[in-house]
Amino acid sequence: MEAAELAARIRAGERVAVALACRKIDERRPGHRELLAALLPSTGRARVIGVTGSPGAGKSTLVTALVEKLRGRGERVGVVAVDPTSPFSGGALLGDRIRMQRHGGDPEVFVRSLASRGALGGLSETTFDVVRVLDAWGANTIVVETVGAGQGEVDVLGVADTVIVVIAPGMGDDVQANKAGILEIADVFAVNKADRPGADAAEHALRAALDLVPRAPERYRTAIVRTVATTGEGVDALLAQLDAHGAWLASTPTGAAVRRKRARRAAHTRLGAALLELCIGELGAQWSETVERVAARELDVAEAAAALREALRAGGG
Amino acid sequence: MEAAELAARIRAGERVAVALACRKIDERRPGHRELLAALLPSTGRARVIGVTGSPGAGKSTLVTALVEKLRGRGERVGVVAVDPTSPFSGGALLGDRIRMQRHGGDPEVFVRSLASRGALGGLSETTFDVVRVLDAWGANTIVVETVGAGQGEVDVLGVADTVIVVIAPGMGDDVQANKAGILEIADVFAVNKADRPGADAAEHALRAALDLVPRAPERYRTAIVRTVATTGEGVDALLAQLDAHGAWLASTPTGAAVRRKRARRAAHTRLGAALLELCIGELGAQWSETVERVAARELDVAEAAAALREALRAGGG
Repeated sequence: MEAAELAARIRAGERVAVALACRKIDERRPGHRELLAALLPSTGRARVIGVTGSPGAGKSTLVTALVEKLRGRGERVGVVAVDPTSPFSGGALLGDRIRMQRHGGDPEVFVRSLASRGALGGLSETTFDVVRVLDAWGANTIVVETVGAGQGEVDVLGVADTVIVVIAPGMGDDVQANKAGILEIADVFAVNKADRPGADAAEHALRAALDLVPRAPERYRTAIVRTVATTGEGVDALLAQLDAHGAWLASTPTGAAVRRKRARRAAHTRLGAALLELCIGELGAQWSETVERVAARELDVAEAAAALREALRAGGG
Repeated sequence: MEAAELAARIRAGERVAVALACRKIDERRPGHRELLAALLPSTGRARVIGVTGSPGAGKSTLVTALVEKLRGRGERVGVVAVDPTSPFSGGALLGDRIRMQRHGGDPEVFVRSLASRGALGGLSETTFDVVRVLDAWGANTIVVETVGAGQGEVDVLGVADTVIVVIAPGMGDDVQANKAGILEIADVFAVNKADRPGADAAEHALRAALDLVPRAPERYRTAIVRTVATTGEGVDALLAQLDAHGAWLASTPTGAAVRRKRARRAAHTRLGAALLELCIGELGAQWSETVERVAARELDVAEAAAALREALRAGGG
């Protein structure tokens, strides 16, 4: 199918077209770039919510509960589940298929799982592109769920307007939380499994840690909400905090500055990955041979990069 | 100081030269590339052990116990502690300074903390370079500690010959472990805090999960060791497993193939980051303007990357 036709069918709300487009993007099939360019004018309308946190915090269950609330408002909802897989095997992981079954039959919910293949910048790029497809499809809210808080996840979360960090009682103290860098990426904390012992302690530790982070008075004050995803308790309050943060982004000068800064960072990452992919493609065998020689310690990385830069000046055309 | 002189002083084992070199690299000061090129012939001798796992598993304590054992053998030891910090603030995090105090006065242990500044590929590149300095300094073993198991951490772990994944009882079940992709990056699992309830369950869940991962018969059989880092229990057994994996890498055809594959992957990542940095530097204002236009959704990423590629063909010289 032509890119223009596929784009038109996505804009018309056809789920099968969305699925086709996601596969095209995930597998980087021919024509996926044209498709994304054709979709660009229809994007920028959806609200994107990032959800992260350590394994075991209950992220997937909380996302399911959140999607239910959004559907209750009549929203069309997209979900992108980003699971890192090994760069060594490239294999897919368990768990994806059993996810989100509660919304399996709902035509207004589209769920897509992504697996990293270890490409430089690859996972965040694919996430951005799939979010763009769901945005053009007409999703009002798109939830991007990712594991952990490492650099890769931070890149993926660059797509989000609002970031929820999910923690559970007993999963580490305040210093641990800070270590993982999560204090600074969270707009809203969900203390999930709040019916378990230790929820008070977790919330207090979090508040104490937040108080230690220096921030300008006009910055958004990170909210903390207690939830029990399995029963739905606290999910309305969580949604209210998401709305509050969305309103802050949309209506305050600092909020607008934060949005610009995040958009700029995301554009930097994506543009860098796309440029590098082009260069590597053009270099072809020279790229692979240089990689071999660097791997064998015959060549220094910086010298090798300079030589490749020269080759790019002369080459192609 | 000239690169050649600094390199000579590092090779001679001068700690102050090592500290100077690490700062140069971390801040990407002028001359750091020349220094790394000068050090290249003196590298490739150290064994590099990667240690990862969720916050709260007790990684830092286990690393401290491991360093003590290595010192007991008379080894010179380097430690690189990689903590992600927010790309939004660029600020440093708590905890670094209180780390590794037990080895504070030992001239044969050199500890360096690194913080990500959110640059594309930046953290793994800096880790590789600091490892190279410690290698040239004469460290027999270099321990690289990182948080989590996201894509960024997997990149950082590309520097390691052997990867230990630390888990603690009650921090998530087998599917959760699999979700985080850790099953496939681990050569050795340490079930730490093994004196706590749930250690049996954690070990059994891990074994069951490992049995589910399809792997070729000649592949290394991931070991599981129980440790109590605070008392040192199990740390000898852990070291024995590290030695066993090192012997496998060095003496079997599959081990050699694994080493080549990892070295190639690491070279790919580092070379890509170095080439991109060169290109962005040359593009200058055109790069920043293009980032702005992509961020504002005026330009499609792929089209913008193609235009930059053209500019690189014409530009500079």
